[in-house]
Amino acid sequence: MAKKMNAFYAQSGGVTAVINASACGVIETARKHKDKIGKVYAGRNGIIGALTEDLIDTTKESATAIAALRSTPSGAFGSCRFKLKSLEANKREYARLIEVFKAHNIGYFFYNGGGDSADTCFKVSQLSEQMGYPIQAIHVPKTVDNDLPITDCCPGFGSVAKYIAVSTLEASFDVRSMAKTSTKVFVLEVMGRHAGWIAAAGGLVEDQGIPVVILFPEIEFDQKKFLARVDKLVKEHGYCTVVVSEGCHYPDGKFLAEQGTRDAFGHAQLGGAAPVVANMIKDALGHKFHWAVADYLQRAARHIASKTDVKQAYELGKKAVELAIKGHNSVMPTVDRLSDSPYKYKIGMADLKDVANVEKFMPRDFITRDGFGITEKCKRYLTPLIQGEDYPKYKDGLPVYVTLKNVAVAKKLATFKL
Amino acid sequence: MAKKMNAFYAQSGGVTAVINASACGVIETARKHKDKIGKVYAGRNGIIGALTEDLIDTTKESATAIAALRSTPSGAFGSCRFKLKSLEANKREYARLIEVFKAHNIGYFFYNGGGDSADTCFKVSQLSEQMGYPIQAIHVPKTVDNDLPITDCCPGFGSVAKYIAVSTLEASFDVRSMAKTSTKVFVLEVMGRHAGWIAAAGGLVEDQGIPVVILFPEIEFDQKKFLARVDKLVKEHGYCTVVVSEGCHYPDGKFLAEQGTRDAFGHAQLGGAAPVVANMIKDALGHKFHWAVADYLQRAARHIASKTDVKQAYELGKKAVELAIKGHNSVMPTVDRLSDSPYKYKIGMADLKDVANVEKFMPRDFITRDGFGITEKCKRYLTPLIQGEDYPKYKDGLPVYVTLKNVAVAKKLATFKL
Repeated sequence: MAKKMNAFYAQSGGVTAVINASACGVIETARKHKDKIGKVYAGRNGIIGALTEDLIDTTKESATAIAALRSTPSGAFGSCRFKLKSLEANKREYARLIEVFKAHNIGYFFYNGGGDSADTCFKVSQLSEQMGYPIQAIHVPKTVDNDLPITDCCPGFGSVAKYIAVSTLEASFDVRSMAKTSTKVFVLEVMGRHAGWIAAAGGLVEDQGIPVVILFPEIEFDQKKFLARVDKLVKEHGYCTVVVSEGCHYPDGKFLAEQGTRDAFGHAQLGGAAPVVANMIKDALGHKFHWAVADYLQRAARHIASKTDVKQAYELGKKAVELAIKGHNSVMPTVDRLSDSPYKYKIGMADLKDVANVEKFMPRDFITRDGFGITEKCKRYLTPLIQGEDYPKYKDGLPVYVTLKNVAVAKKLATFKL
Repeated sequence: MAKKMNAFYAQSGGVTAVINASACGVIETARKHKDKIGKVYAGRNGIIGALTEDLIDTTKESATAIAALRSTPSGAFGSCRFKLKSLEANKREYARLIEVFKAHNIGYFFYNGGGDSADTCFKVSQLSEQMGYPIQAIHVPKTVDNDLPITDCCPGFGSVAKYIAVSTLEASFDVRSMAKTSTKVFVLEVMGRHAGWIAAAGGLVEDQGIPVVILFPEIEFDQKKFLARVDKLVKEHGYCTVVVSEGCHYPDGKFLAEQGTRDAFGHAQLGGAAPVVANMIKDALGHKFHWAVADYLQRAARHIASKTDVKQAYELGKKAVELAIKGHNSVMPTVDRLSDSPYKYKIGMADLKDVANVEKFMPRDFITRDGFGITEKCKRYLTPLIQGEDYPKYKDGLPVYVTLKNVAVAKKLATFKL
């Protein structure tokens, strides 16, 4: 019988309200299978922790602390934006990973991230064998952008979608109250550089009678058509709400946010798409406006996380460990939707080679013909993903989120220069 | 015995997450005293509804709908930004109010607003008697800015404070996760043109070990000192969070947001303080940043309202009606704090003449000596106000907020030109 191997777990890329729920699923499940899996080591600041041999010993954390990860946003072990280069360009880093895994008897590699991370995980899964140290690499999906293929949705997305839908509803009620003598247009900027999934969630308030215009990255921005749409809605309803994706751009690819604005000293100024859109409306139609940029608030908003999302994040972490125990390599657990209403799904599995470097955009039939709204089909897709509330505990008016001890594992190797 | 009079209720100025809870308190309490108070008419879009005789008959709303106001953000009858001029300059409008009140047998005037509205309410209370139609004018306090005098706090503030504290905590966890290779500074812009109460709420996360810098309108902005503070915190913690009030300004009174930015066409560009602060840090210290502008999201966020705030908003509406029944005029019910911990308060009463045109700023001893944080005294003040959660019901993943029928009362008078 093979020697019992340890596991490595790391968080990668932008964090979410529920990535720690996946960490919780991985660690709790590994702890339940102590006969098969040794310790779970987490990379401090993602894959950088593996490269620099900066490992965190999760066995030093109590069961209570690990359980609290389920309701704590952000990346408890630190994440990173660091993409391994191709194998040809950068065999040194892959060799180092193997060296660290060997030194710490690591046989399982759980990588919790989005598209780029899936590619890294895939490479690790392929290389290790070639380099004489087989390791089972399992990818745990995570991305607020919801742009991974095969899986029906990605953990992190449902909670952002819920936050954006709730916020759009609330701010729309606000502007509706003010419209008679003051603000007539409210503009909310949301994340999504390439895919409009998050912006789409703003469209869910339409069924409550809210006039809303959505600007997707998938649809080239047409200023004239957009202003006509806003004008029509304000004339009909007295107000309207605009949800603009940060990735919204002109036909030539230039983002709305890139307006060539300069400060008093002539420096190019980084702005958001929301103020640009708001000022455009003011200039053309004269309406008083308010605008908000949700930025990190949207992806960190564990206080209003989707219960469905939290549950799936946990289940995918759990499944990753179960797949590892069954001997799988180079795979990713997925959410496979069985029905919209009642919402049913099962946890499935995809080959990493089919996941890496594929980006899933909004299908055209999820967007209305005029390009400014979402279709019934899209609503049927989105609605189950924002179902249910999963409130954290509170103390003194604030959520109780856990900060782990993150005790380092003693180093065994020479220093590695990144 | 005097003839039973009807009541007029209106919402004024920027709306909040709990102003409808005060409306609920007013209407439910009036309904309980049908022997004393006739119908409650609401002004459609605030005082404009009174001037234009555009009254809403709240008796057409079911008890369920009125009860649902308690958990619905925004102004259910519409609010307005419309300040009556002084009596001397504008006797015509006051005379019209009296005319409308007479026509609809209105003997009680409940005005739900902030400082400007308190002034209007005071004038109505003084004038009516002089004009031969005595009306009892009671002000119901409301303002997210928390800047009314005498009352310990203002309904609307506790919920914004909770939203800002929760959001600051969540976004700070996020940037902490990302700081090793990416974002090191997160900047959140919050409301508060003159008073820094809302910004102060961001300081409540400090006790959880979060390095946070607060920029108050009460403290003149000192760029050098500010950058030194950010630099120190990032060196010590690896990251930091900045909470900047929209009213933060230079010694010469110029707001941070007024940077003289111009777009590609040379138009002056309206921006927020957050991107200005973020770019300033980037230029001086080189840190990657993210920024958010909460805008309406903060004051509309009923989904994370403070239970204490909701309760007080209701109680003050209720008390306003009780004071009216007791024969009071020209008063405002107040929150009188009895102790911080355990938090105890009673509902008191202030004379409107002492409320009108007085703005309450952060006391200097609520702000740390260096001007970038809040003191223990301030924390003791703020903490009770964000206590407790008062979640709305949800359906299909979204909060259930009520939209009233808002049936108009038949007009009896000639049209009035605003």
